[in-house]
Amino acid sequence: MPLTCSVFIGVSLDGFIARENGDLEWLISRGEAAGDDLGFQKFIAGIDTIVTGRGTYEAGLGFETWPYEGLRVAVLSRELDADADPRITVYRDLDALLRGLADSGAEHVYVDGGQVIQTFLREGLIDDMTITTVPVLLGSGRPLFGPLNGDVSLVHRATQVFGASVVQTSYDVVRTAG
Amino acid sequence: MPLTCSVFIGVSLDGFIARENGDLEWLISRGEAAGDDLGFQKFIAGIDTIVTGRGTYEAGLGFETWPYEGLRVAVLSRELDADADPRITVYRDLDALLRGLADSGAEHVYVDGGQVIQTFLREGLIDDMTITTVPVLLGSGRPLFGPLNGDVSLVHRATQVFGASVVQTSYDVVRTAG
Repeated sequence: MPLTCSVFIGVSLDGFIARENGDLEWLISRGEAAGDDLGFQKFIAGIDTIVTGRGTYEAGLGFETWPYEGLRVAVLSRELDADADPRITVYRDLDALLRGLADSGAEHVYVDGGQVIQTFLREGLIDDMTITTVPVLLGSGRPLFGPLNGDVSLVHRATQVFGASVVQTSYDVVRTAG
Repeated sequence: MPLTCSVFIGVSLDGFIARENGDLEWLISRGEAAGDDLGFQKFIAGIDTIVTGRGTYEAGLGFETWPYEGLRVAVLSRELDADADPRITVYRDLDALLRGLADSGAEHVYVDGGQVIQTFLREGLIDDMTITTVPVLLGSGRPLFGPLNGDVSLVHRATQVFGASVVQTSYDVVRTAG
């Protein structure tokens, strides 16, 4: 099976996914105000594997329950102990991660966390992105997007306006050869 | 009359309004592909004054015809000669610019150019923003948004999906006291 890699993430209008200190309250409060799960349950139902970085993995540890129950969890990190957590598999580099995804039979991957998303975009590995924009400018923080090796073209798939000024747009990423 | 300050601008999905070298071809070509003026004529019909920086003013000089016919043009620039162009008024700082707008009876101002937009947002002077997102990630360039003194909250006004994967969203800016 070919691997499909999807992004599903919330951002400020100025493109940040967290404040510099990792704070997400500005995002969570505005997402909740929309009075909808913003399509997340439908999205996650089609996912078998989440790929994330150490930061997003560690943020998940702070939730009351493990947020990735039922999913394979692959963490791309040079720092995390390989046996840090029996629920995850740690990969040291992208090549090892991609081999691990293939070996495990992954079909639909949820790519999460700024650094990992940027790496996957740079390598031309993202198939689609659903970006939920909450109505605030932060001025600074951890950016969703970063440097690329060239332009990445997108095709609009759908836009939905939720309550509380939340706007969600999905794009397919135009995969370039090589 | 109170002054209304509006932004109407095109960006890449990663938030750039021009490449580092000023190139706009990526934006113009995708805007034209939408097969619509993207609401610009309707927007500009309500405008009496454009406020911009040197970069955007000089870019306008490259067009076949002066793009600001019929508008007062205020340019915020420390470098531009005060008598560089009889069609414009040059202001050295924001205070002088705001006095000039008041003195000239400006009512609805089109605030354009990254630096000027960022200055106006930082000072709480923007009333509404119409942001037209074209379907590309550039990876680098001149950003629309920049540092702020605090969060700026927005209220969604409208979203429209045009052809060629162009998505336009308008927000009112929540003005904070002081």
